[in-house]
Amino acid sequence: MDIATRVYNHKWKIDPIIRSLIDTDFYKLLMCQSVFRNRPDTRVTFSLINRTGTVPLARLVDEGELREQLDHIRSLSLSRGESTWLRGNTFYGKRQMFRPDFMEWFEGLRLPPYHLERRGDQYELTFEGAWPEVMLWEIPALAVLMELRSRAVLHDMRRFELKVLYARAMTRVWEKIERLREIDRLGIADFGTRRRHSFLWQDWCVQAMIEGLGDKFVGTSNCLIAMRREVEAIGTNAHELPMVYSALAETDTALARAPYEVLSDWHDEHDGNLRIILPDTYGTRGFLENAPDWLAGWTGIRVDSGDPAEGAEIAIDWWRSRGEDPRKKRIIFSDGLDVDTIEDLHTRFAGRALISFGWGTLLTNDFRGLVPGDALAPFSLVCKAVAADGHPTVKLSDNPEKAMGPPDEIDRYKRVFGVGDQQPRAVVV
Amino acid sequence: MDIATRVYNHKWKIDPIIRSLIDTDFYKLLMCQSVFRNRPDTRVTFSLINRTGTVPLARLVDEGELREQLDHIRSLSLSRGESTWLRGNTFYGKRQMFRPDFMEWFEGLRLPPYHLERRGDQYELTFEGAWPEVMLWEIPALAVLMELRSRAVLHDMRRFELKVLYARAMTRVWEKIERLREIDRLGIADFGTRRRHSFLWQDWCVQAMIEGLGDKFVGTSNCLIAMRREVEAIGTNAHELPMVYSALAETDTALARAPYEVLSDWHDEHDGNLRIILPDTYGTRGFLENAPDWLAGWTGIRVDSGDPAEGAEIAIDWWRSRGEDPRKKRIIFSDGLDVDTIEDLHTRFAGRALISFGWGTLLTNDFRGLVPGDALAPFSLVCKAVAADGHPTVKLSDNPEKAMGPPDEIDRYKRVFGVGDQQPRAVVV
Repeated sequence: MDIATRVYNHKWKIDPIIRSLIDTDFYKLLMCQSVFRNRPDTRVTFSLINRTGTVPLARLVDEGELREQLDHIRSLSLSRGESTWLRGNTFYGKRQMFRPDFMEWFEGLRLPPYHLERRGDQYELTFEGAWPEVMLWEIPALAVLMELRSRAVLHDMRRFELKVLYARAMTRVWEKIERLREIDRLGIADFGTRRRHSFLWQDWCVQAMIEGLGDKFVGTSNCLIAMRREVEAIGTNAHELPMVYSALAETDTALARAPYEVLSDWHDEHDGNLRIILPDTYGTRGFLENAPDWLAGWTGIRVDSGDPAEGAEIAIDWWRSRGEDPRKKRIIFSDGLDVDTIEDLHTRFAGRALISFGWGTLLTNDFRGLVPGDALAPFSLVCKAVAADGHPTVKLSDNPEKAMGPPDEIDRYKRVFGVGDQQPRAVVV
Repeated sequence: MDIATRVYNHKWKIDPIIRSLIDTDFYKLLMCQSVFRNRPDTRVTFSLINRTGTVPLARLVDEGELREQLDHIRSLSLSRGESTWLRGNTFYGKRQMFRPDFMEWFEGLRLPPYHLERRGDQYELTFEGAWPEVMLWEIPALAVLMELRSRAVLHDMRRFELKVLYARAMTRVWEKIERLREIDRLGIADFGTRRRHSFLWQDWCVQAMIEGLGDKFVGTSNCLIAMRREVEAIGTNAHELPMVYSALAETDTALARAPYEVLSDWHDEHDGNLRIILPDTYGTRGFLENAPDWLAGWTGIRVDSGDPAEGAEIAIDWWRSRGEDPRKKRIIFSDGLDVDTIEDLHTRFAGRALISFGWGTLLTNDFRGLVPGDALAPFSLVCKAVAADGHPTVKLSDNPEKAMGPPDEIDRYKRVFGVGDQQPRAVVV
């Protein structure tokens, strides 16, 4: 597969970005199954948010092309091979991870309509409907916008400029891999689907990791690539679960309990390496302090915002305070990683806990500095649940720069979850 | 075309290196036509000479594979499309450059047998027979050995190591092109067929030059690539003409006249930009001093050995001494060029003469420093006429390191052509 040639060909024919309903993150499907069982009738709204206002998406990406790509996604359904793989493959060592009733529903699924409007230099893109359906828009919507933006920038480049652009990007990824393979007992996964440069590029990066890292590469969050490249599909759960559960809470007391309810539902469905706590939705410290004891028995914690070293120290202290041995617990770092931070975090925490890394945007979209005006640099695009059954959602996280929701609701959540001052950190990707 | 993938595939199937009789230098065909007319019955021996003894070709390249490749070349004949192109294309602005009688002969040609024997770590590879046939072995024989050596080194590399190797090599070529395009009024051609890394790589380099240099890229010496990429085929004549004419000379007087006889035959056949003097076979200085006046009317001089700046100064002085305006004459540099030397020579001579460059090995085979042990670095492999009608040939050139022939004959030629002390220069490629 010659990526530069393919990109060049985009100039003369339509080329769907998303070609499969499983070109999405594995945890989306796990969460979808959980929602399908526990909250199938919840109505949610997901909305695109470009946290990097300096990237004028609506000026870069043609509305017609965007509609074409989104319409194409709505035409997709699970193929027979994909269905067989989801039903028959082992995930996290377990067969039949996906239950027959869920699979039957998924096999009949088409994604629901979208609502697209231009607002100045940005697009307003929203999805409304039943939670299990709408939630599956998040990853393909992001990937489509990221790749259309890449294509827009690449469109005016000539063939050998493109070849050399990719040559440089490949060399960069490979040099990162060469550094990573020096790290003893490393465990790292690709988490780069949503903000990838392009599908082919993510696929290239995964293959490079397979060859370059051997056993140190533990898998990819992307189901389609995991299936095709015969590696593990990786992922557990995300902020949307506590965000929606919390929005549905009718009292402050119910709100305070909601994030634990999420994990209680999860606990009933999953064990082992799938029991990973994502504690930062409304502040890691408070979440852990108030957590029920059974949560300390879970396998690990994912650190996804704030200072990662601080998050890991909080986790280790918490396990100790609950009589657990942190060396038998797993810490998964997944926020804004690059080789430097991976090396630093590994040096600091290896041996003190089991460490692994979910490497995202700076794996699959590090085109920084490779074109004039840095027009291919990754940027912070998200697609989040903004409402559930008519109530707005809120996210605080361990970084106030990532907070979302109406200001009065943010204040209420801060009060309910006892979140005090937080240290702002720049959100790069 | 994904070069790395193709190289990877070489591990599991036979893949002919030379797939066409016109995958050769244009000047070979021009000279062949001239020989076919003027000296069709001369019997010559061509022989492979590895001037870089530290590259143990016979240990690197399997004899069976080499025979397979050479046998494949003997199975080739001119295709209908190739013949049409040679008959109908414009070369140097002229139609029907190749005469019907020559084309008819060429269409029926198969290359004559080869003789291959291993001698220690090197191969002895010789070709004997009629000059017009044997001479066409030179370029494919070299290209086969160069590419088999590349394949041998690449064989143990894995897929993404290969991809990154080519990514680095592509970036390097492109950065050279980016420097070259800054040179005002540059004229540069690809002369890199014989010692190319591989066919696909040469083809890549030519395409990169087409896109990156625009009009500054004047063409390629490779006929097949010129045909496919629709660029000019470039080249005039080489040392084998004076070497064989000289070997056939029966007296010292005839020997002294032989190199001029070559150009007299050439003068009858060609005009304009094809009238390029290659003066260094037996020393540039003496050749020009003793040259007949009509030679000063020729279009240019090719500087192919010794200090190129000195060679150019000698040429300029000589034109002046014969009442010619050097600013209307062309100097073609073609020996061991890379971007630094091209920049330097251009700075020094632009405006004083018309300048152009035939860029060879360091265009199409600059893999220096890219693999451990520098095992892909280019090396100095040649395939030369060593005898004609039973007489040994001699080459002196402007660099004693490039001299060839039996020592007593070298002494005789030096005496006849009045060549004194010469400055040795390292032969890199």
